[in-house]
Amino acid sequence: MYYIGIDLGGTNIAVGLVSEEGKIIAKKSVKTNSQRPFKEILKDMADCVIDLLKEQNVSLDDIVSIGIGTPGSVDSEHGILVYANNFKEKENIKMREIIQSYIDKPVYMTNDANAAALGEVVAGAAKGYKNVVVITLGTGVGGGVIINGQLYEGQYSAGAELGHIMLIHDGEQCSCGRKGCWEAYASATALIRQTKKAMEEHPDSYMNKIATLDNVSGRTAFIAAKNGDAAGQAVVDKYIQYISEGLVDIINIFRPEILIIGGGICNEGEYLLKPIREFLRKHSYGGSRHPEQKLAVAALGNDAGIIGAAFLGKKANEK
Amino acid sequence: MYYIGIDLGGTNIAVGLVSEEGKIIAKKSVKTNSQRPFKEILKDMADCVIDLLKEQNVSLDDIVSIGIGTPGSVDSEHGILVYANNFKEKENIKMREIIQSYIDKPVYMTNDANAAALGEVVAGAAKGYKNVVVITLGTGVGGGVIINGQLYEGQYSAGAELGHIMLIHDGEQCSCGRKGCWEAYASATALIRQTKKAMEEHPDSYMNKIATLDNVSGRTAFIAAKNGDAAGQAVVDKYIQYISEGLVDIINIFRPEILIIGGGICNEGEYLLKPIREFLRKHSYGGSRHPEQKLAVAALGNDAGIIGAAFLGKKANEK
Repeated sequence: MYYIGIDLGGTNIAVGLVSEEGKIIAKKSVKTNSQRPFKEILKDMADCVIDLLKEQNVSLDDIVSIGIGTPGSVDSEHGILVYANNFKEKENIKMREIIQSYIDKPVYMTNDANAAALGEVVAGAAKGYKNVVVITLGTGVGGGVIINGQLYEGQYSAGAELGHIMLIHDGEQCSCGRKGCWEAYASATALIRQTKKAMEEHPDSYMNKIATLDNVSGRTAFIAAKNGDAAGQAVVDKYIQYISEGLVDIINIFRPEILIIGGGICNEGEYLLKPIREFLRKHSYGGSRHPEQKLAVAALGNDAGIIGAAFLGKKANEK
Repeated sequence: MYYIGIDLGGTNIAVGLVSEEGKIIAKKSVKTNSQRPFKEILKDMADCVIDLLKEQNVSLDDIVSIGIGTPGSVDSEHGILVYANNFKEKENIKMREIIQSYIDKPVYMTNDANAAALGEVVAGAAKGYKNVVVITLGTGVGGGVIINGQLYEGQYSAGAELGHIMLIHDGEQCSCGRKGCWEAYASATALIRQTKKAMEEHPDSYMNKIATLDNVSGRTAFIAAKNGDAAGQAVVDKYIQYISEGLVDIINIFRPEILIIGGGICNEGEYLLKPIREFLRKHSYGGSRHPEQKLAVAALGNDAGIIGAAFLGKKANEK
């Protein structure tokens, strides 16, 4: 038997045929075109599933369930996308019902951060662990929590919003309406803002040689720092501290068997991880009285969302 | 069959005989005398259990297990008190082994905040709920997390240290070594510190009429506020904001079915709870898109720790 996993993104809908072992057998994708009615998006999603099955000569009878990871707030129990900022239609999309009108299979849903977290547990950097937290440093700071091998989503699937813990009281405005959330300091978006500010304050810095304010990326400050630029180094040091402070909170709350961080910034590898590990060791509750927190980088990239979504059905049957 | 629950405090060891339904049949206590060797403390603990059983005409054969809630860091798996600041002997006390040398029964352990949280779920304000967070505002800010009806303790039982999430970056020194933890702002200890500071800054305030710097309590600012004192009101408003900000973090992380707060300060009732509810409604992730977070005050007082400790054995058998 197989599982269908769907990663609904702002740009692409990625569909995967996933084995019982969590391996992607085949993938197919179509454009999301997010600024059209959801009925059209979901019709294309269903067609993409059907096309993929045809191409792979797999019958619908061999599919256990369909799982969808989507941006936004999800009511997993009722299969509803409660709210998603980045789509034209933003509220109360009955995804399960609409997909099932095209394909008569059980449909499971969760948000994209949860799906990616579950994927890393099923087949990625957290494989074999039962209590895991996955933090994704991207446009925002996403979180996924696995407890006893199952996704923990909280009431109305509204928990695990780990980017929205407070880091700096009355600090930067966060997109969630609150001020000073971790996300407003540790996301790639925040890093770019911090880099731009430093470029304006230090016009002679190496950052201004390799980028303009229009094309700053999450790498700009890191490249400058590695080239001995003091202003770039200061941005990197502060950004790593912001990441680490939030991770200390996560450790004090969950003390997971393994903590996974993902997002493009993780390509910095040990240059990023080493100072984070030192910070966690020093500041986590109990300090060095406990063994060091296991920390690793997400291993599956975009595939995590597909595999995690696919396994929503398998996990539901294990409950 | 019965369960023994023991609440080890800095002053008293409280032992309870607890029914299958989570009712305390009888209690007995002895002084802790925390500044003596643990061997003596644990001998008195075992004797107190045996005396209570004799008084109640209950045979050891009718006891399933013994559970202990203790201050400090606990390694539940190995039955070891890893570290406890307030005792003369502070490290690596093999509690289970020592207790079992006196009474040959299964012995379970957890820290006191976890035990109290479990007690509230078994028989108190969170009875009937499966996903619950209990926050105790006392000398520190203690946390207990129940997920799917079971205590969540994290690796090495080192999670659920909910008082040690950051509230104010680089803020007040916390006892854990970090700066700016929630506990350093929202504990009763912090409230007393905040009240003293306001009394010094506002020598004419009503607070200075009802207390001196030597005998300020957690009630001083509340009494002054209720008597129309502006300085007292400012302390109360700020303290309630500190509590609420941390609770928003807890909601964004867990979105529990019900959130319980305990500690002496909760005697303020709706005077405390109403502004907290309004704050949570406004600042929790998703705002009013989700139904209001259920919030209640702990119902069992000190009995929660006894009942929760007793049920450690019952819960372990349900796993």
